[in-house]
Amino acid sequence: MKLLRFGEPGQEKPGLLDADGRIRDLSGVVADITGATLSDEALAKLKAIDPATLPLAPEGVRYGPCVAGVGKFLCIGLNYADHAAESNLPIPEEPVLFSKTTSCIIGPNDEVKKPRGSTKLDWEVELGIVIGKTASYATEAEAEACIAGYCTINDVSERAFQLERGGTWDKGKGCDTFGPIGPWLVTRDEVADPTNLKMWLSVNGKTYQDGSTATMIFKPAFIVSYVSQFMSLHPGDVISTGTPPGVGLGQKPPVYLEVGDVMELGIEGLGTQKQTVIAA
Amino acid sequence: MKLLRFGEPGQEKPGLLDADGRIRDLSGVVADITGATLSDEALAKLKAIDPATLPLAPEGVRYGPCVAGVGKFLCIGLNYADHAAESNLPIPEEPVLFSKTTSCIIGPNDEVKKPRGSTKLDWEVELGIVIGKTASYATEAEAEACIAGYCTINDVSERAFQLERGGTWDKGKGCDTFGPIGPWLVTRDEVADPTNLKMWLSVNGKTYQDGSTATMIFKPAFIVSYVSQFMSLHPGDVISTGTPPGVGLGQKPPVYLEVGDVMELGIEGLGTQKQTVIAA
Repeated sequence: MKLLRFGEPGQEKPGLLDADGRIRDLSGVVADITGATLSDEALAKLKAIDPATLPLAPEGVRYGPCVAGVGKFLCIGLNYADHAAESNLPIPEEPVLFSKTTSCIIGPNDEVKKPRGSTKLDWEVELGIVIGKTASYATEAEAEACIAGYCTINDVSERAFQLERGGTWDKGKGCDTFGPIGPWLVTRDEVADPTNLKMWLSVNGKTYQDGSTATMIFKPAFIVSYVSQFMSLHPGDVISTGTPPGVGLGQKPPVYLEVGDVMELGIEGLGTQKQTVIAA
Repeated sequence: MKLLRFGEPGQEKPGLLDADGRIRDLSGVVADITGATLSDEALAKLKAIDPATLPLAPEGVRYGPCVAGVGKFLCIGLNYADHAAESNLPIPEEPVLFSKTTSCIIGPNDEVKKPRGSTKLDWEVELGIVIGKTASYATEAEAEACIAGYCTINDVSERAFQLERGGTWDKGKGCDTFGPIGPWLVTRDEVADPTNLKMWLSVNGKTYQDGSTATMIFKPAFIVSYVSQFMSLHPGDVISTGTPPGVGLGQKPPVYLEVGDVMELGIEGLGTQKQTVIAA
């Protein structure tokens, strides 16, 4: 299934994408797409519904973030060997963990705000994991079953805030609108191999990232298991798993986003995003 | 007002502390103590209630975290000059920002779990700021009005996870039960000077931290203004503002918590906490 949320910001309804690519309204069945909707049992109930029996959403309706009520928005850094190289950082011996704020989450095609004072606004197409079942001290095999599905994420980053303002990376990762998520949460049964998905990102039509999850260092089930050794992961938590080469910081010379620039990105089977940069 | 939440975990009711130190049940007035309850207007309505007209809570009832639905749990690091010195780190030129998970939040007297593999479990008594009004690019004067109140926080930390496992501090800051908050959210009108409050922490009866918010480097209103330059702060967000000297890491030799140890801590006017360490 491709689960999604549609409608105006804060007013989104739950939906699913039918075989013809049309949005079907699930609001008569569940209140929203949240952690509570993502257990294997809850997903099985949704899967049993004939999409043709569900109302169609209005044409051209906005996509919201594909999951609501995200409790934790965690990220794995430097998880592609080539990206670590372009960042002049060593390949990590174990996953690098950092956080984005949940308040930065927006829909996949919403505008991204360039913060005041921003000089190094950057992009990162990433495979997102959405948790469906609590994971605590999970083995890798157990962790696999805790993954509800996958989605496309743009881990928008402000490099000067991230790297030049002291302390951890949080100042440059959690700014408002820095977390486009979606368009769809694709359930794990429909993602044959999450470690072999093409992924790409362009700015103003020029391709900067053209990679594959095949070059990830730490794979999704390992990441979930690993993080669960430090903290419980709960249904609705999201983990963004790192970006392949081609971020703005890695260009020679570096390239950063300006107001008016348009990012387009996607992951094979998980849908595409398009964001215009506006001033905060 | 001293706002609070009481009852079993996940089943807490909202309450307030009356002049005689008894818990009064607010569940007939508001559903919970959350961001929605913390605007100046909402607080004025609660303040207009005569506590004597509210039912008493059962004697000895558990305190929950004093605010529910926390969206962001941010922290300022190295914000006491003496603590930076004991950590062998320079005094920061601007606030060091990092995150705790919202899933680590527990009541003030709940048990703290020592994570599996933990060898350097540590404590940090901290003044917590609870946001009552959205702050975005706020001046320091505007930021003051965005603070609903203050509370006691124990920023429980695992130093090996935080400092020796690569990446940011998140692995050692967001573990389950690492965020005791409360017992009370004391509204800002009752905190005459948040920059002059005694604070202390003992382990098994031995005092380790004996400081005052007077030695904070960056003060609450400045912190809220500062963070709001990077990201919006929303009602119900919590910012923990750093710890005075005396953490376990700073002892010579370092002292870390073992299963069975008891932490007791408090801040003048904001109430005390007591946690026993158990195995995860």
